[in-house]
Order: sequence, then C-alpha cells, then structure tokens
Amino acid sequence: MKTIRSRSFLARILALGLLGAPGAHALAQGDPLPSWNDGAAKKAILEFVQATTTEGGPRFVPAVDRIATFDQDGTLWVSHPVYAQLVYCLDRVPVLVKARPELAKVEPFKTVMSGNREAMAKLSMKDLEKIAVATLTGMSVESFQADVKKWIAEARDPRWRRLYTELTYLPMQEVLRYLRASGYKTFIVTGGGQDFVRVYSQEVYGIPPEQVVGTALGTKYGYDKDGKPFLTKEPKLLLNDNDAGKPEGIHLMIGRRPHASFGNSTGDRQMLEYAKAGDGARLSMLVLHDDGTREYAYGPAQGLPDTKVGTFPQALYDQARKQGWFVISMKDDWKKIFAFDQGE
Amino acid sequence: MKTIRSRSFLARILALGLLGAPGAHALAQGDPLPSWNDGAAKKAILEFVQATTTEGGPRFVPAVDRIATFDQDGTLWVSHPVYAQLVYCLDRVPVLVKARPELAKVEPFKTVMSGNREAMAKLSMKDLEKIAVATLTGMSVESFQADVKKWIAEARDPRWRRLYTELTYLPMQEVLRYLRASGYKTFIVTGGGQDFVRVYSQEVYGIPPEQVVGTALGTKYGYDKDGKPFLTKEPKLLLNDNDAGKPEGIHLMIGRRPHASFGNSTGDRQMLEYAKAGDGARLSMLVLHDDGTREYAYGPAQGLPDTKVGTFPQALYDQARKQGWFVISMKDDWKKIFAFDQGE
Repeated sequence: MKTIRSRSFLARILALGLLGAPGAHALAQGDPLPSWNDGAAKKAILEFVQATTTEGGPRFVPAVDRIATFDQDGTLWVSHPVYAQLVYCLDRVPVLVKARPELAKVEPFKTVMSGNREAMAKLSMKDLEKIAVATLTGMSVESFQADVKKWIAEARDPRWRRLYTELTYLPMQEVLRYLRASGYKTFIVTGGGQDFVRVYSQEVYGIPPEQVVGTALGTKYGYDKDGKPFLTKEPKLLLNDNDAGKPEGIHLMIGRRPHASFGNSTGDRQMLEYAKAGDGARLSMLVLHDDGTREYAYGPAQGLPDTKVGTFPQALYDQARKQGWFVISMKDDWKKIFAFDQGE
Repeated sequence: MKTIRSRSFLARILALGLLGAPGAHALAQGDPLPSWNDGAAKKAILEFVQATTTEGGPRFVPAVDRIATFDQDGTLWVSHPVYAQLVYCLDRVPVLVKARPELAKVEPFKTVMSGNREAMAKLSMKDLEKIAVATLTGMSVESFQADVKKWIAEARDPRWRRLYTELTYLPMQEVLRYLRASGYKTFIVTGGGQDFVRVYSQEVYGIPPEQVVGTALGTKYGYDKDGKPFLTKEPKLLLNDNDAGKPEGIHLMIGRRPHASFGNSTGDRQMLEYAKAGDGARLSMLVLHDDGTREYAYGPAQGLPDTKVGTFPQALYDQARKQGWFVISMKDDWKKIFAFDQGE
C-alpha cells in the first residue's frame, strides 16, 4: 500500500511540474527569449520580429523574404581559446601521418606530432593552412563527413570538458527558434568550413546543410573502381567567407539581402553593414564577449583584452553605435549562457 | 425578374462546376499528376514518392533528407529554338550600346545591332560569351534583378507569342507541387545563370532564390557615393553548372545527394548519375523531346533530329536504360504540355 501511495504522490508532483511549472508556461505562452535579461538588445529583437510579422504594418516583411543570417564561431558557440575546427585538423594529423609516414619528418606536421603545445601555439598562419589543406582535402565528401561526425560526437573542450556541441549559447538558440517560429529562414554564414559545419548544423542548430554558407573548397567529380560516381574534396578555394566574402557568399548561396544578421567580430562587419543597409526593417547585432567569468572576455573594444581569435575592435563598436546596430553584452544581456548553466 | 433568374441559374452552374467537376475532384482527392498519361514514367514517380514517404517502410526517407533537383531549360520550360536567357542578352545589347556607343563598331555587338538574324545565328560560342559578359556583369545585383524582372514580364517567345514564363511544362509543375506536398525540398540546378533564374523562380515554380543553383559569376563588395554597401556582378566564373559541374554545384549549394533528379540533356548526365548512385530509393528521369507537333522534336537519340540546344544523344538514352533511370516521352507521357493547352 505504501509503495502505491508514494508512486501516486510522485506522479502528481510530476504532473504538476509538467503542466504547471512557471518556466514551461512562460516559454509556451509568453517570453520567447527567457534566457535574456530585459534590456535594449532583447527589446530590439522582439520589436524587430513584431514589426516584420505584423500584416498590414508599415514594416511588414512577407514570409518568403524573411531571411536571417548568423555567424557561428563566437556568435552561436564558443570559439576560444581556438576554433573547434582547428582542433579537428590538429587531431587528424596523427591519422594522416599513419597513412603517409613521410609527413612525420616534415614541418609543420613534425611539430604537431611532437605534442609540444608551446611549439604548436607558435605555428604560423601558413603552417596552419598547410595542416588545413592536408586534413580537409583529398578524400571523398562522404568520408570527410563520416570523420567529422565521429569527431564531433566525442571531442571535448579543454575548459568545460564538454562536447563542443554543448557549448552553443542558449540565448542565441532561443533567437534561432524564435525567428523560425516567426516565419524566418535561418542561415549560418561562417568563416569556418562549410562542409565541416554542415555535418552537425541540423542536429545542433536545427539548420539544414543547404542553409549553411561557409568558407568553401571545390570538389571534383569522378568514379570509383566499380564505376560509382563520387566527389573528392580539392585544395581549391571557391569562397573565403570572411569580411567582404560574407555578403558575396550570401549573394552566391542565398541570393538576397538578409533582414536580420548576427555576428561577433571584425570578419562579420561587411555582413552586418550589408543587412542593415537594405530597405525596410533590418536588424544587425554583435555579440560582445565581456564575461570572463562565465565565458571569455576579449575585444579589444571597450577596454577588453585583445585577441587574435574573434577580434572585436573599438572601430567596430563605434560603427555599430553609429549605424544603429545593437551590441549584445554577454555579461548583462544573458541570464544563462549555456543550457547546462545553473538556473537564473 | 428575368435577369435575377438568369444570374441565379449562372451561379448554380458555377457552383456545380467548382464543387463537382471531375477534374477538380481528381486533383484534390486523387491523382496528383492529372496531366500525365498512365505509363511507366508516371508510375515511377508515384511509386518513388509512396516508397520514400511511407514511415516504417524499407525505402523510407526522413523529411529532412528529401531533396529533389530539376534542370530548367528543356526540363521545366521550353529551350528551343534558343535559351530564353540568350534572348535576354541579345535584347540588352542596344541598351548597352546606348551607354557605350563605341561598342556599335565592334564585333560581335555590331552584328547584333544590325538585326540580321542570319548573321546572328552564325555567331560563335566565343562571340556569345562576349555578349554574355557584357550584358550580365558590371552592374549592381539589384540593377540586374530589376532589368530581368522587367524583361521577363514582357518578352514573348517567337512561336507561341506568349511570355516565356507561360511556357513551363504543366506535367513538371505537377511533379514539383507533388514532391513539395510530400515533404520534398525542390531545387533548380540549371546550366543557365543562377542570378537570372532566381529573379522569377518563386513566382514561376514556387522555388525560392536560395533553392536555385546555376552557373554563377562572382560579385564584388563595395560602397556607393553615400557609403551604402552594394555588390557588383563580376566577370569571374565561380561555377560552371553543367556536366560534372552539376554534382559539384549541388555539393556546394545543397550539401547532399538528391533522392530525385530530373534533366533532359547531356549536361544533366552527371547529376542524374550522382542522384541515382546514392543509397536507398533514388529516382533519375530524363525528358525526351519527341513531340514536334505540340512542342519540339530533337535528340539525336531514338532517331530524332540532332540539335545544338539541349542535345540528348543515344548514348545518354542507353545509359538511362542500363542504370534504371526513366525516360519521359513528351508525346506519350504528357496529356497536356502547357497550362494553356486545350483539355485532354
């Protein structure tokens, strides 16, 4: 009897929790951005969506034209101390050397194989490019996809010891969902590798592969020994999706000017300018990493420490203020940064 | 009194027509491909959709993976005697010469300005490329879009004296709608200009600009005199979306192998091979132009007259048969070709 009564009590608690908890209630019926503090940034997003989806209103945007673009590294997920894709490339070097042992004696592969982190941190941009070309090209697209899929399911960030895919920003995930629920088509426009991000974009962000624009290498069509056609990844740069390459990539892959655009660094400047300069309601926003406690603090805008990864210079901050973009303060605007953070 | 009775009678006839006509009934509740005759091609489409959308079935494809690609010229609309986009380029030459009068004395512009159709028909591929570069580049993307929009709203085909946009194949429009109603995302993958087709794709095919892959030129980001950013179309080929360029373009712009693919000529061969070679249920189909009465007859497959526009060689026909693609006979498989055709 006692067991049965306990179960019944538990069931009642669970039912109350599922049906009546304030959090669930607010999410379903009220605030679409529960992880955001009230402030100018949250208000700007809510007002933009309200204005562009109010039929008959002066700033209404037809559903077919609702396009929103998001940078990934530093905008949707953590990009410090280094980009996840760079870690992938470094992690692939031993596999590469196993297949081609002669590389073990050649720089920069020799340094990577040494495991000496201090020496690795000193690798030049040219060295990193060599590693990228060696680890991102020469295989079939399916083989690359399978490798990334395996890596991303296991690799962990050194600080939180969590999967990289857990390090997405909850407030930005809410913006993605809110825009989609409001008829917007959401795109990732990343300086990172298009083929890399496409492997996990659907699962992690709810964004299908064809809605990921990124730095893209060419492929070459051919046939295997059984005559089955396949594509090989080639070391031929088709799109450098950074700086002016972002609006150029948006035109190539999307074909129209976004109504809303989100970035966090100097590589996003032209994309945000381009979005904001369109007719009617346009929203451009920058994430400022000013929370060294919960995430990282870097700029060098607003006196924050300088960085080589995801630089946000003062000039970009000033341009944002001048052109009516919004700067999102991670510290002030976000109640929670990650889904795994302890509550408010 | 008489007038009122007549109106009432007319209203009753109309009501009967709208609610009870066999055609409307069949479309709404039964046959999703009413302009197709019963035969192997229609059966193949119906079975493919049935198989890939039956949850729990052995050939089920999750909604997120349902991708279908369509060539445009000769597959979705008429491409004879010449491609509509070529007519656009030739039509633009006088405007170009007005802006740059020195071109009037230079070939191939001189020939085009002469209006001598016989001489124009003899222009070489290199001449046509010069005309394409001159009429498709150098302007802002918005200015190009506005020009094409104006042209496509007015220009008429020489045979039917109808807008080019009326010359889409009704049976293929039905396939597009049927696939979309079955959870497929439909893409155009055209050898024609990506920016050109994107101007009218939504209105004509229900396909948004970002779902049009085509031969693509680069753009260059810059600022006008007021500091407003814009993109200029550049004479730099990013993607030649023909032959092997089709699967390569599909990878670049869509990122996965289509489950269904439709073409009509040798330039579609690799796209159809690529689609068909994927795992699970795949459908590759070719439109054969064997109806010289209602449209055009050309091959040279199956003893049809040879052509330079949309060539369908016998080797392609044989490959289709060997690899399990389907060949659609316009003559035998299509009850109607255009929406404006008189009934069945």
